[in-house]
Amino acid sequence: MILSALLTSVAINLGLCFLFFTLYSILRKQPGNITVYASRLVVEGKVKDGGEFNLERLLPTAGWVRKAWEPSEEEFLSSSGLDAFVFMRIFIFSLKAFTFGGIIGMFVLLPINYSGSQLKDYSDFQHKSLDLFTIANVNNGSNRLWIHFCAAYVFTGVVCYLLYYESGYISSKRIACFYSSKPQLHQFTILVRGIPVPRGSTCNDVVERFFQEYHPSTYLSHSVVRRSSKLQNLINDADKLYKRLTNLKSKKDVPQRHRRDGFLGVFGPKVDILDHYERRLGNIEDNVRMEQSYVAAKDVPAAFVSFKTRFGAAIALNIQESINPTEWISEQAPEPHDVYWPLFTVSFIRRWISKLVVFVACAYLTVLFLIPVAIVQGLTHLDQLITWFPFLKGILRLSFVSQVVTGYLPSLILQMFLSFIPPVMVMLSSLQGYISWSLIQKSACTKVLLFSIWNIFFANVLSGSALYRVNVFLEPKEIPRVLAEAVPSQASFFIAYVVTTGWTAIASELFQLPKLIFNFINRIFRRNIDDDFEPPSIPYHSEIPRIRLFALLGVTYFILAPLILPFLLVYFCLGYIIYRHQLLKVYVPKYETGGGYWPTVHNSTIYSLVLMHVIAIGIFGLKKLPLASALTVPLPVLTLLFNEYCQKRFFPLFKDYPAECLIKKDRTDQNQHNMPEFYDKLANAYNDPALMPTKYSERSDSHTSPLLHGSQA
Amino acid sequence: MILSALLTSVAINLGLCFLFFTLYSILRKQPGNITVYASRLVVEGKVKDGGEFNLERLLPTAGWVRKAWEPSEEEFLSSSGLDAFVFMRIFIFSLKAFTFGGIIGMFVLLPINYSGSQLKDYSDFQHKSLDLFTIANVNNGSNRLWIHFCAAYVFTGVVCYLLYYESGYISSKRIACFYSSKPQLHQFTILVRGIPVPRGSTCNDVVERFFQEYHPSTYLSHSVVRRSSKLQNLINDADKLYKRLTNLKSKKDVPQRHRRDGFLGVFGPKVDILDHYERRLGNIEDNVRMEQSYVAAKDVPAAFVSFKTRFGAAIALNIQESINPTEWISEQAPEPHDVYWPLFTVSFIRRWISKLVVFVACAYLTVLFLIPVAIVQGLTHLDQLITWFPFLKGILRLSFVSQVVTGYLPSLILQMFLSFIPPVMVMLSSLQGYISWSLIQKSACTKVLLFSIWNIFFANVLSGSALYRVNVFLEPKEIPRVLAEAVPSQASFFIAYVVTTGWTAIASELFQLPKLIFNFINRIFRRNIDDDFEPPSIPYHSEIPRIRLFALLGVTYFILAPLILPFLLVYFCLGYIIYRHQLLKVYVPKYETGGGYWPTVHNSTIYSLVLMHVIAIGIFGLKKLPLASALTVPLPVLTLLFNEYCQKRFFPLFKDYPAECLIKKDRTDQNQHNMPEFYDKLANAYNDPALMPTKYSERSDSHTSPLLHGSQA
Repeated sequence: MILSALLTSVAINLGLCFLFFTLYSILRKQPGNITVYASRLVVEGKVKDGGEFNLERLLPTAGWVRKAWEPSEEEFLSSSGLDAFVFMRIFIFSLKAFTFGGIIGMFVLLPINYSGSQLKDYSDFQHKSLDLFTIANVNNGSNRLWIHFCAAYVFTGVVCYLLYYESGYISSKRIACFYSSKPQLHQFTILVRGIPVPRGSTCNDVVERFFQEYHPSTYLSHSVVRRSSKLQNLINDADKLYKRLTNLKSKKDVPQRHRRDGFLGVFGPKVDILDHYERRLGNIEDNVRMEQSYVAAKDVPAAFVSFKTRFGAAIALNIQESINPTEWISEQAPEPHDVYWPLFTVSFIRRWISKLVVFVACAYLTVLFLIPVAIVQGLTHLDQLITWFPFLKGILRLSFVSQVVTGYLPSLILQMFLSFIPPVMVMLSSLQGYISWSLIQKSACTKVLLFSIWNIFFANVLSGSALYRVNVFLEPKEIPRVLAEAVPSQASFFIAYVVTTGWTAIASELFQLPKLIFNFINRIFRRNIDDDFEPPSIPYHSEIPRIRLFALLGVTYFILAPLILPFLLVYFCLGYIIYRHQLLKVYVPKYETGGGYWPTVHNSTIYSLVLMHVIAIGIFGLKKLPLASALTVPLPVLTLLFNEYCQKRFFPLFKDYPAECLIKKDRTDQNQHNMPEFYDKLANAYNDPALMPTKYSERSDSHTSPLLHGSQA
Repeated sequence: MILSALLTSVAINLGLCFLFFTLYSILRKQPGNITVYASRLVVEGKVKDGGEFNLERLLPTAGWVRKAWEPSEEEFLSSSGLDAFVFMRIFIFSLKAFTFGGIIGMFVLLPINYSGSQLKDYSDFQHKSLDLFTIANVNNGSNRLWIHFCAAYVFTGVVCYLLYYESGYISSKRIACFYSSKPQLHQFTILVRGIPVPRGSTCNDVVERFFQEYHPSTYLSHSVVRRSSKLQNLINDADKLYKRLTNLKSKKDVPQRHRRDGFLGVFGPKVDILDHYERRLGNIEDNVRMEQSYVAAKDVPAAFVSFKTRFGAAIALNIQESINPTEWISEQAPEPHDVYWPLFTVSFIRRWISKLVVFVACAYLTVLFLIPVAIVQGLTHLDQLITWFPFLKGILRLSFVSQVVTGYLPSLILQMFLSFIPPVMVMLSSLQGYISWSLIQKSACTKVLLFSIWNIFFANVLSGSALYRVNVFLEPKEIPRVLAEAVPSQASFFIAYVVTTGWTAIASELFQLPKLIFNFINRIFRRNIDDDFEPPSIPYHSEIPRIRLFALLGVTYFILAPLILPFLLVYFCLGYIIYRHQLLKVYVPKYETGGGYWPTVHNSTIYSLVLMHVIAIGIFGLKKLPLASALTVPLPVLTLLFNEYCQKRFFPLFKDYPAECLIKKDRTDQNQHNMPEFYDKLANAYNDPALMPTKYSERSDSHTSPLLHGSQA
């Protein structure tokens, strides 16, 4: 890539971003788009539809930027929760690290790289290759490489310091949030699995007896988990039918109330749909009741056990209960509405096996993902398309069309396949036996991150078959050399990647094109969608991996091609303001992991640092400076030791709360809150929503769905 | 090696063993050797010195074998403790596994190997090479190799089943021992380190306040650890002096009571030694008192904290106490007399760094051990010796002497270096910051095991430089091939190794030659040694690694050269009976890890199985049966999964006792034992013995050492 091409690309993408922002600032003021651009405010009842038309609505303004910027950290934390706060801290951390890195890179490393003469390039400035700005241009054996060497040490030191500071800051916030929170149901509850139920007694009795025996002073109540997935399906059916019925009743136009009762509503005798639906709902309801009584007797050897104090729950959680360590396994309970009810793999062995299977599936998917994609992309060659769709021959022969098709179709297919990855990873994680949606999302986040690093970073760096890439990692001694040869040559690709994919991703996050279109279609074809309206929550499992991948690029290319850093800084600046805005206006926090994503961020940062060091070791070797290569070896070792220390110093705090906090909090609660009332609530909080009594037929004139009530009780 | 050579070696070693046993059965009956051959019985007061001379004493008998065999497992367990019981279970486990392996190996694999014709060997039976009995003799690509393949699967299955059974059996015994034990001090106590002491307050106050605040119902008492290593030295000096003084007083021969008070007792004025010693003792005692009052003010931020119940201690142990996870770190306390008092590395960071340093030192020692040994061995060439000691020229030129010197000296040097390894590893482990001797020994056991596997197994298999061996493991893909080429060719060496080193080690364990000689010299030159007599305890850290190394040889050579198995069976049979005898008669259990060595045994077994599989994969590849090679790959995977399962199923039990046991035991104690008395004892149990009041001068007529009292209080 030459310099002018990069500048053109930057200009185009800046233009696109600006266009998006302008469009956004107009569209967000249109009343119809309010559910897309301010869904959180709608749910919280802070915005009303409609309002009068005025000219101001059509003028682009930047007021939203100011509004997103204004709230202080404390305000943001209290309105959006700790997870969102941690998410924003990722941007702040990256901005700090790359501002420092950018200054060193642009004012120290870049001039050194450019002043080298290893690559002979006599073209004028505009046509100079971007490689002139990379370490590849420094002369072999030049002593100037020692400056790169120092930069690697200094940058690592600064990143580690920032990481340490950030970990400390976030964990102190986590404790502060805990102290200031109201009593929460899940803090008093644990999930116990692998309950040994002897023949002739029920799980209910066994749990009751066990905890009254061994935790008599703190045990409060429990609810046994039931195998309710079939019931859940029935209730979903009933719910849908009930909604349709309510809609139908509220409509006054009679002609639609009759249709034929046969195949596709075309054949058979004419029936009154209202009657028909009510009869079907009655049937399903009977089934539900039958299934409920059946399910109520079908125990799963697992139960949510609630305690009178948080410390009591922590004791039961932390001390192995039974002589057989595979029985009475306890886990912190999630918030009641966060529970993933299809807990179908409850036995120790089955959970363990499904974990293994998912691990293998995930590894295969990650390693071999690009093979089917390449095959599908191969099918989109122009002549292949013409053979399949001969009627398109004329159009495809046009030079413009053919360029677009061959240029964009393969990358479109790749993007399409890639967009399936987060949901697939969520699916795999849910098979793993996690007990809550938040844990599933967290696990999927790690999976997507590993997937991205392998299939975006390594696939582009080590261009070649998947087998070749796997092979590289089977020869540990060769890794530095291979990476040092391959990584710098991809610098211009990744600079372009940041500018195109990165900036566009941020702009489209703001613009929400698919939702805008969906909302538009919905408004045209259906009227009453507000009933179904469910506000989105931020998909951490696809956003965090993307951001971390860009940070990985920044860290790895810091000494190789510092030119990437300014573009990354623009990405993180835009990201900071736009995500802050979205978290305040659009996304609703659904469940709280209490900053549980930070360890993932920490680990990925350490990983990128070590990757950078390994490449540096290889580079100094290739550049005929073996001493620098040898002296870089302590750097990854020190970084890993730092990581080890952080794991001990901070990570325990992200897992459990310490006894000190629990006991203090318990004591203040006993004085301040109405605990008996809270205990009453606790006793029924963890009942399966599918087992709640449902009565559609009698209440069918009420306007809200009983199931929604159930699942939020 | 040829068959007849093996048979000769077996005959010689059997003869030697028989000789040792005969000598032993005579010597053990001599009254003078009673402290060597029945030291435990002496300590327990079950045997008395002397007795009349009769002829029977000079006749070899085998009664000791019967006596060692007789006690049931329960009796053995109650008399020798759980650790000794686990030690014997290692032999039983190995016997079971290798009996099965031996039957398969000798009656199935060996005939197949021998009937092959890959190695052309036309000599008569006596001169046939041992290689004919190994897998090397099976023809390439022969379908008979599938029988080896099946044998690998079946043997692995059987070993895993035995391992599972044994783990279950031992952990049930561990729980049973716990239930049947009296209240023990260390069960109620934890060690807390990293206590944050603010300026102006003492550690004592901080601990008191913290536990009264957060564990008010269970907290009993605590004792702060003090930095007492200097004091300890002083007390040791005083103790030695005191002993000498007592000896001197008890002697009646006046001439020795005066000597000159100067250099080496030769110059200076004559003094009365008794007076002189008493004055010196007085001085030291003053120093001790001064140092004691000084040390009492010099806190270390660590304390032993005792609780009213075991469950109370477990709660404080298992739940992170403080917001900063590097403060208030708790650990189960060891038995009071097991505490390793020089707890000099108490801060979190310092312990962590010393752990790292020890790890690196250990890795270096293990990997590079053979290099200095080889250099020293190189110095013992005959001409080198003659240059150094020219006066020995005549003797060294004798052919017999030169053969002995060149043949035995290098291996003697190797043995000498090897014998230093267990103490060195204990030293390294003690630097690591363990709080008790038993933990130090356990950690040294693992270190010695790794050392032995590397320096005995791999050094012989991959003959070549240490760097070459390290290199092999840096190319993971090559490992199976390299091992498959190297391991079978060393079969005859290891068979000879089992017969010579193994059998001799067992026989000398019984015979205790060094102790016998030491005892003999002592009896001749000194009279009153009984005062100093301290019974030995079994050095698990050198015995277990040796036994596990032989088991590793058995497992790895099972499919390669099954001829090794009968010799191993003899080793384990002899070992079983002899160690059982020694544990009953000689070794005194000093401290109890509660079966803590079993996980090490388990892990080493899994390691040897996987090693065997890796070699099998390589062998089938070399033998041109790639399908068998590929089908062996699942075997290590399955074995590792089995290991993973066992880690979850059994290992938690070896770490802590579950809540169920703790609470049950607490309740029975409250009813049965006189707990207030026990609590009184508990309050002072963990005071540093160095800080106990010592008064030599006044009590100097009492016959036992005050320090010994102190350290066992």
